[in-house]
Amino acid sequence: MLIHLNAVWVVIAAAMVLFMEGGFSLLESGFVRTKNAVNVTMKIFVDLTVGTLSFWIIGFGLMFGKDAFGLIGTTLFGNPSHIALSIPLPSAAYVLFQIGFAVACISIVSGAVAERMNFNAYILTAALICIVLYPVTGHWIWNQSGWLAKLGMKDFAGSAAIHAVGGFAAFSMAKYLGPRKGRFNSDGSTNVFAPSNIPLASAGAFILWFGWFAFNAGSTLDASNNALASIALNTMLAGASGGTAALFLTIKKFGKADPSMTINGVLAGLVAITAGCAYVSQWSAILIGIISGVIVIFATLLVDFLKVDDPVGAVAVHGFNGVFGTIAVGLFDHSQGFLTTGNASLLGVQVLGAAVVMVWGLMGGTLMAKICEKTVGLRVSSHEEEEGLDMSYHGIPAYNELERFTDLPTSLYNFEETTGITIASPVEKGISREIV
Amino acid sequence: MLIHLNAVWVVIAAAMVLFMEGGFSLLESGFVRTKNAVNVTMKIFVDLTVGTLSFWIIGFGLMFGKDAFGLIGTTLFGNPSHIALSIPLPSAAYVLFQIGFAVACISIVSGAVAERMNFNAYILTAALICIVLYPVTGHWIWNQSGWLAKLGMKDFAGSAAIHAVGGFAAFSMAKYLGPRKGRFNSDGSTNVFAPSNIPLASAGAFILWFGWFAFNAGSTLDASNNALASIALNTMLAGASGGTAALFLTIKKFGKADPSMTINGVLAGLVAITAGCAYVSQWSAILIGIISGVIVIFATLLVDFLKVDDPVGAVAVHGFNGVFGTIAVGLFDHSQGFLTTGNASLLGVQVLGAAVVMVWGLMGGTLMAKICEKTVGLRVSSHEEEEGLDMSYHGIPAYNELERFTDLPTSLYNFEETTGITIASPVEKGISREIV
Amino acid sequence: MLIHLNAVWVVIAAAMVLFMEGGFSLLESGFVRTKNAVNVTMKIFVDLTVGTLSFWIIGFGLMFGKDAFGLIGTTLFGNPSHIALSIPLPSAAYVLFQIGFAVACISIVSGAVAERMNFNAYILTAALICIVLYPVTGHWIWNQSGWLAKLGMKDFAGSAAIHAVGGFAAFSMAKYLGPRKGRFNSDGSTNVFAPSNIPLASAGAFILWFGWFAFNAGSTLDASNNALASIALNTMLAGASGGTAALFLTIKKFGKADPSMTINGVLAGLVAITAGCAYVSQWSAILIGIISGVIVIFATLLVDFLKVDDPVGAVAVHGFNGVFGTIAVGLFDHSQGFLTTGNASLLGVQVLGAAVVMVWGLMGGTLMAKICEKTVGLRVSSHEEEEGLDMSYHGIPAYNELERFTDLPTSLYNFEETTGITIASPVEKGISREIV
Repeated sequence: MLIHLNAVWVVIAAAMVLFMEGGFSLLESGFVRTKNAVNVTMKIFVDLTVGTLSFWIIGFGLMFGKDAFGLIGTTLFGNPSHIALSIPLPSAAYVLFQIGFAVACISIVSGAVAERMNFNAYILTAALICIVLYPVTGHWIWNQSGWLAKLGMKDFAGSAAIHAVGGFAAFSMAKYLGPRKGRFNSDGSTNVFAPSNIPLASAGAFILWFGWFAFNAGSTLDASNNALASIALNTMLAGASGGTAALFLTIKKFGKADPSMTINGVLAGLVAITAGCAYVSQWSAILIGIISGVIVIFATLLVDFLKVDDPVGAVAVHGFNGVFGTIAVGLFDHSQGFLTTGNASLLGVQVLGAAVVMVWGLMGGTLMAKICEKTVGLRVSSHEEEEGLDMSYHGIPAYNELERFTDLPTSLYNFEETTGITIASPVEKGISREIV
Repeated sequence: MLIHLNAVWVVIAAAMVLFMEGGFSLLESGFVRTKNAVNVTMKIFVDLTVGTLSFWIIGFGLMFGKDAFGLIGTTLFGNPSHIALSIPLPSAAYVLFQIGFAVACISIVSGAVAERMNFNAYILTAALICIVLYPVTGHWIWNQSGWLAKLGMKDFAGSAAIHAVGGFAAFSMAKYLGPRKGRFNSDGSTNVFAPSNIPLASAGAFILWFGWFAFNAGSTLDASNNALASIALNTMLAGASGGTAALFLTIKKFGKADPSMTINGVLAGLVAITAGCAYVSQWSAILIGIISGVIVIFATLLVDFLKVDDPVGAVAVHGFNGVFGTIAVGLFDHSQGFLTTGNASLLGVQVLGAAVVMVWGLMGGTLMAKICEKTVGLRVSSHEEEEGLDMSYHGIPAYNELERFTDLPTSLYNFEETTGITIASPVEKGISREIV
Repeated sequence: MLIHLNAVWVVIAAAMVLFMEGGFSLLESGFVRTKNAVNVTMKIFVDLTVGTLSFWIIGFGLMFGKDAFGLIGTTLFGNPSHIALSIPLPSAAYVLFQIGFAVACISIVSGAVAERMNFNAYILTAALICIVLYPVTGHWIWNQSGWLAKLGMKDFAGSAAIHAVGGFAAFSMAKYLGPRKGRFNSDGSTNVFAPSNIPLASAGAFILWFGWFAFNAGSTLDASNNALASIALNTMLAGASGGTAALFLTIKKFGKADPSMTINGVLAGLVAITAGCAYVSQWSAILIGIISGVIVIFATLLVDFLKVDDPVGAVAVHGFNGVFGTIAVGLFDHSQGFLTTGNASLLGVQVLGAAVVMVWGLMGGTLMAKICEKTVGLRVSSHEEEEGLDMSYHGIPAYNELERFTDLPTSLYNFEETTGITIASPVEKGISREIV
């Protein structure tokens, strides 16, 4: 019976986690400028398509295959469902849930490199993240033979394994890529581009919040885990606290209740509780949330100050708060936390783990950027950037209020020319054949 | 085993109920004018952040704590999860689900006061609703020692406890606040502002409908409740009937199939079945839905006639149909309904309960408006209203089709000035330093 | 215990399937021109309201009632929940899930006939699909006494019973209806209208993908079905593969990564795996997905070549890939497939079944179009088409960036005139009575 309940639980949770991609898509297309809104959306489709296949065929084995030296997995390539699980759960449900995690890791990067990255480079990056970047540290932390796991590192649903890795890879890629034109002035000041569509970005945040309950509580993978419900409640409390802190801080500091910062405050709280959701008390979750809401604002300013251009705040949300959330377990864990028990050993492991994934992410991001630069080309041309990536790469703008035809030559869409198949011309009655 | 199934069921249901906030956000930002679309969205974030914490810390105890005189709860402040439940369910799941309900109650109000309420007043209102307004009548109806509960009042998922309270508080706040400029003419006629974004509003309605299955069926809190599935089916049938009735009525009365009215017809059906979903037959659910679809249209006209300005129709949807749904239990309940059994005693209790929450909501709304007026200020200035609340309170418009910088002084976003921390200036390669 | 788990599973799955209507709404309103975006949204509300009631009252009995001659059901009219199920599942959950399927079948048609169909004709069509078109072949395939079921046809979640029927009914209705003005030129070339809102269309696709996990895995109707999790994984892999294939093919063939085609590639993969999700291996699911991603592009071109105007690609996605998916079971089924076992008998049945539903859909679509033409009128007037259906039928445009009043005469919204009830005029303080 439990295995059936677990199958239902993890399949629904996986669907919700995968639905978070819709959240990323709306959030990012709402935050960037109109001329790049299609492009960021298409990148999310790349995550879900190319990313999924890359992870399923190769990455999964590297992460969860039979361990070699605590460093990498060596089996299960091309057949992830052959994994032997120690919990009563169909392996296909486990695989599906893990796909959701891998795909989320890419989508963190997509926002930070928005509006100026070559689309082909992004496809390559998505594959590289799912094949190597995410699975390796994932193995260290979540494969029971991984070296960080053996040290006792605790990262319940991936503040380190997903968010910090993704967030710092995003940082170094965004840095290598350089900022969008016009983002920083020669006097050192910063220009903030207005988000193109706040209601859409908000819709994305609500979807992400919805999915996060499954992201964290679903990581139990076993409905008989008694912590399941309190994980979900901690997730809610931390997200609410992160948003509250960011909301009031922007009112106080900037004189306006800032929508982007409030949204990112919520997400920061969710990221920060991801590692510790199963290990901390509800009041600790609230405290972690509040701190994360403060961190996200100053981290955003810091990234700007470092002249790294992150259009959606992914580094501040996922990178900084992923690291903070990992360390927070060492502080607030109810049985081993430094603040709760006075014992610093777990804290040391968490700091080490956070530092390791941070370095791995930073190195990986730069390396991936270099690989793209040497192969398919990393950055769009100046002309493409000014025109917007939507027209350059996808031939179509995001919003067409007026009736109009696409710029694609219609002959490209001609069946006979495209396929080489000739069909006797159909005779249609009543077709209007004039151009309106 | 049942406790594990219940944990899964209620956590997923709670996530779906909380996702309804995304539905409210899209519905309201689509229904209001463009210049206030960010503001209504930010109010939903206030509900989910400030509202959640207010309810968790104080409101929950007032509602579910140990009863005093049938009137209020007196324990569980600051630690809702210490509640002792009589059903096999982890208390954290129960708390999370109840947070979703409390937050929904605020969001009902947010729509009716849209486009002219001071944002600080809204923050205060959200807190007051979660701390006092919702928990008190909630205690009367849902705490087994509450005086209405002891009389035998039946309100399965909150037509009275959530929707009628919220809807009539919305009415009196909207009345106290006064209408938006230009809404009513001196000859007594009414102007209808065009909704800014119908597809977005519709998306909100679909999310609300999705969440409503969890709102109603999740209120079982126990998967072994045999009514669970028929509750969900009744929910569907009533929503479908409400929408059908409103659709055909607008075609007949107005000559057009009106989108706002059709959406509100669906929501009216959902509100009206909320009290009785576990107690009535499927044909009764259809009948309740049809009646609610008629009520919502005439109630909308009545609210206009009373010169109360409700930009999204929240009073007609949640207030009037919350009351109707509560009374409908007295009519259609399969074991105690007046029409089904001829016995009028339940009907009397339901009418009393509906009247009580209606009065409570009306009084509470006015009182909260007065408290805001005396403290943070209730209504925006005339200039702010004309400019739109998005720019006044959040410094950013909802939609930016053109590339542009925000009006926020960039210095406010400067890390060193904001934090007082000085960092050696980074030397970045390849940064474009010209303004585009 | 299993019945409780099944109730939870199927109710959640049904909610997710019904939420797919929100996906259809966003997808279609994003794909059509702005002036018809409200209209397609309203059609989805018709599906969920009129469609639901039509199916519940009549269609369900025709589909699942006591069989007559293998052709139709003859009982359960007006009381679907009286069905006797052979699995441990409350009948109300079963009925709710089946409503989701019936409604999906209509929504497939709605996209193909968008932008030029009389709204009243659409209401009639929605009812006819739910009352007759869908239930009849549904009975043949899914009622255990249906003649195709008795032949051994396998269609797990409805590639044939839902998608192919709907897709080919869409084809013949769209053909009968004629193309939108300006769609085809007299030299035989084709004009492609730019989709009005790509981010919105994408959001629709993400919701559809989310719901599809429930569409397919929920079709187990029984959580103790050991295939449940692998069905969900197959669904993911096929969707990802369909999108990958379409993405790379558009880059190669058209020089641009085409958003509409990529979205439809994902959906094609999901449609194609719907019949076989429970019967094929994961590598087969990937292969089916890839083929479907290729099919959808050439089928789109073929439909254009045949001068049939399908604004959203519903025929290519649901029709062609519904047929392909049905046949693919005959090829890849792990115990009876032609490619896996060399036995061609299942393949023969699948080809027959696919052909039958295709013919049924084509005939049904034409017949429904004729019925509409003779009764309420099928096509909008030339003037209405040019003005857009939003203003013609709903009196309101989709997007109103500027503040303005609706064109509806305010007197129509007057309570006293509409109801005939006279109320003593309210005296309101502080109401601004000037028009702004």
